[in-house]
Amino acid sequence: MDVKNINALFDQDLSVVNLGLESFAENLRNEDVKAVQVQWKPPAGGNREIALFLDKLEEIRGKIDIDAANKKAAEIINKGKPTLIDISTAGEAIPGYHKKLVLHAGPPVEWERMSGPTRGAVIGGLVYEGLAETYEAAEKLAASGEIEFAPCHHYAAVGPMAGIVTYSMPVWIFENKTYGNKSFATLNEGLGKVLRYGAYGDEVLEKLRWMDSVLAPVLKKALDLHGEIDIKNLIAQLLQMGDEGHNRNRAGTSLFIRELAPYIVLLDEPKEELSRVLKFMHENDHFFLNLSMPAAKCIVDAAAGIEGSSVITAMARNGTDFGIRISALGDRWFIAPATMVDGLYLPGFSADDAAPDIGDSVITETIGIGGFAMAAAPAIVKFVGGSPKDAVATTKRMYEITVTENDIFQIPALDFRGTPTAIDVIKVVETDILPAINTGIAHKEPGIGMVGAGLVKPPEKCFFDGFKAFVEKYSG
Amino acid sequence: MDVKNINALFDQDLSVVNLGLESFAENLRNEDVKAVQVQWKPPAGGNREIALFLDKLEEIRGKIDIDAANKKAAEIINKGKPTLIDISTAGEAIPGYHKKLVLHAGPPVEWERMSGPTRGAVIGGLVYEGLAETYEAAEKLAASGEIEFAPCHHYAAVGPMAGIVTYSMPVWIFENKTYGNKSFATLNEGLGKVLRYGAYGDEVLEKLRWMDSVLAPVLKKALDLHGEIDIKNLIAQLLQMGDEGHNRNRAGTSLFIRELAPYIVLLDEPKEELSRVLKFMHENDHFFLNLSMPAAKCIVDAAAGIEGSSVITAMARNGTDFGIRISALGDRWFIAPATMVDGLYLPGFSADDAAPDIGDSVITETIGIGGFAMAAAPAIVKFVGGSPKDAVATTKRMYEITVTENDIFQIPALDFRGTPTAIDVIKVVETDILPAINTGIAHKEPGIGMVGAGLVKPPEKCFFDGFKAFVEKYSG
Repeated sequence: MDVKNINALFDQDLSVVNLGLESFAENLRNEDVKAVQVQWKPPAGGNREIALFLDKLEEIRGKIDIDAANKKAAEIINKGKPTLIDISTAGEAIPGYHKKLVLHAGPPVEWERMSGPTRGAVIGGLVYEGLAETYEAAEKLAASGEIEFAPCHHYAAVGPMAGIVTYSMPVWIFENKTYGNKSFATLNEGLGKVLRYGAYGDEVLEKLRWMDSVLAPVLKKALDLHGEIDIKNLIAQLLQMGDEGHNRNRAGTSLFIRELAPYIVLLDEPKEELSRVLKFMHENDHFFLNLSMPAAKCIVDAAAGIEGSSVITAMARNGTDFGIRISALGDRWFIAPATMVDGLYLPGFSADDAAPDIGDSVITETIGIGGFAMAAAPAIVKFVGGSPKDAVATTKRMYEITVTENDIFQIPALDFRGTPTAIDVIKVVETDILPAINTGIAHKEPGIGMVGAGLVKPPEKCFFDGFKAFVEKYSG
Repeated sequence: MDVKNINALFDQDLSVVNLGLESFAENLRNEDVKAVQVQWKPPAGGNREIALFLDKLEEIRGKIDIDAANKKAAEIINKGKPTLIDISTAGEAIPGYHKKLVLHAGPPVEWERMSGPTRGAVIGGLVYEGLAETYEAAEKLAASGEIEFAPCHHYAAVGPMAGIVTYSMPVWIFENKTYGNKSFATLNEGLGKVLRYGAYGDEVLEKLRWMDSVLAPVLKKALDLHGEIDIKNLIAQLLQMGDEGHNRNRAGTSLFIRELAPYIVLLDEPKEELSRVLKFMHENDHFFLNLSMPAAKCIVDAAAGIEGSSVITAMARNGTDFGIRISALGDRWFIAPATMVDGLYLPGFSADDAAPDIGDSVITETIGIGGFAMAAAPAIVKFVGGSPKDAVATTKRMYEITVTENDIFQIPALDFRGTPTAIDVIKVVETDILPAINTGIAHKEPGIGMVGAGLVKPPEKCFFDGFKAFVEKYSG
């Protein structure tokens, strides 16, 4: 087409088919030009190596029914019934626990490679546990090789941020009533100077001690009187109340308080202690996070190890690495360096202070809440950034990489559409759409704490590597 | 244009300007025809008499600054600070109360014209108050002229549904901290067989007696320990949590429980009673309605009596009539027969069972929450009908008839836009857009109770009459 022809083109009414960046089509439409938008991106974002693996995938599909396997995994996730059954200590509740076992968030990481907040929380945890008398001694002990470090995920547990669990810490005990598997998580410490963000001063340890001597026993007794709590039902409700179950937990925390308060008041403990327990939960809108996390963990654990399924069964970070697991590939981790969070900072802090992405809380996204359900929680953008429109767009995008929609978890603003459920690593790779995650931000140095919250783009390498391993397992 | 020309018209590309029903333009756009929609309706829906008054209004605007007066009223509504300060009985708290004074919802109505649910609640109220021993005797007493009936609104009070208040009933006491005026409302009884829906059996009265002997004293003592509660802050929060403050109150109720629970547990009352109080609130998601109503009442009362202001300062119904008040016109009611509610019915009931629109709860819409804030509460459509899209459209429409947007009450889904605030009767008449109201539905016969919930279109006559009186006041 030469210039003369181009001019002729613009003399007539245009009907445009636009491929690629949608804003071109929008601009045309604003000028009253007919424009049809075709959604298209090269598979795997144009990555040639991955494109070769995608070709191999087609051969595999002739041999094994990946879709059926994924449907099965998604159905297991949909049918999971996470139930809070008890409170105990990590040492008593978690099979195989011993005094010198310290669990941490994310995939495996040795002391030398641990992030600042993880180190800070380990130091605090060892002193709390009485394994060291001073913070200096704790640091030495941690480096000595005497302490066994392991991911929470290896013990059916999950921990927010640093995710440090030691022997005496109280834990929520969950059971997936449909499949019988259990899960565990510590109790939420509140905001500010807290162990999970890597702070470890006396104030931090004092609160932890109050949690194990007062908070946990009171809640356990109240729970015994109340009976088990169906957390799936609470999650379904909180999604209708502006929470998404990861970084907005105000509704979940409220629902949990009103559920237990009538039983807390019946206990024989000193009233002042009962009042402090109720106040502690009331003053911490994230209290429910440590309930939505083990709920998610016991839901998704039931979908692990399904032959032929490319559904992601764990995502987790430790401030050093980001790791994922895939159903058919069992316990293997696919790991890449953790990325930085794009977020809003507390007064006095900036991106320079931030540790890379950290914590097991992304287990919520793994079952389709959290970042995947942001359309249910437009007010969360005041905490993690972005606009309510972005929140809706984020959820809609997640339907592209998931197998199904949840039966029970619904998003009112999307006409009660079920949350996008069961992330398929194949779809992630094919569409080059990464899971949407919102998260807190810890200070990069040990001993400081929370500095902000935001949105994080996980490293695509985890998903590429997991996908390649999946293809390799079934080819040849 | 003859038929031949019409055919010629359809042979060429169309560019259509559509005036009126938007669906014509939509249909064209669906066929890829360019169509520009012009929003236009004849003023006052084409009502000629009203059009004449609209002409007179233009003359008035030369003499008095209606916009400034409305801006002042809207500012007063925006600055109102409803605060829960105490609990007492109607007899003690409300100035001028006497033993034989019975308040009811809505504009004034004599016994003979009272709706079924109002009569039922009066009968129950008289027996509860000990003024009659049997329901039959109560009915006779009510008809005897010995009882003084008056609208709640005449005593700075508001009552949901039948809205019956008698001397001994406990009431919340509110103060508008910015302007010093007070307001009152009874405590919410829960759903099912309750006085406010016109039920009056022994079960109903037994619960009322428990409310005055246990519930109210416990809450009063807890409130004394806690100190006054800023209800404006709770309303701001609940709008971010999927409530709209009229027919969805789950978040409000949850926030209220978690606020008071740490103090309830401190009381010296028998623990079982404290537990029952907490359970009573927990099992009744509408508990907060009787807090959002007096909050709204004390907000809008401060904006009454402003010279030149056409802002609506009360809307209320009694199952017989719907009435409104206008700021510049003080205490005058503009009344028309109450309309029927378009809603969802409880199992076993249908529209045939329904009483016309009833209750003072529409005070919430008067300050811009409730039906005006439905965009904040998409899940409410499961209770009152419609779709989440309708809920958003309803709120957007209400900006057309209001003076301002609230500073503090924000709707996350509309990019944190303030709720549409201060209804201007002139705008209602000019645009022919009626205030959006969602509401419960009572059975039309006394003694039965709630049958459903839905959306109601108020009678336009109230607004026309109020508007005409406003114009008359200032012309000539």
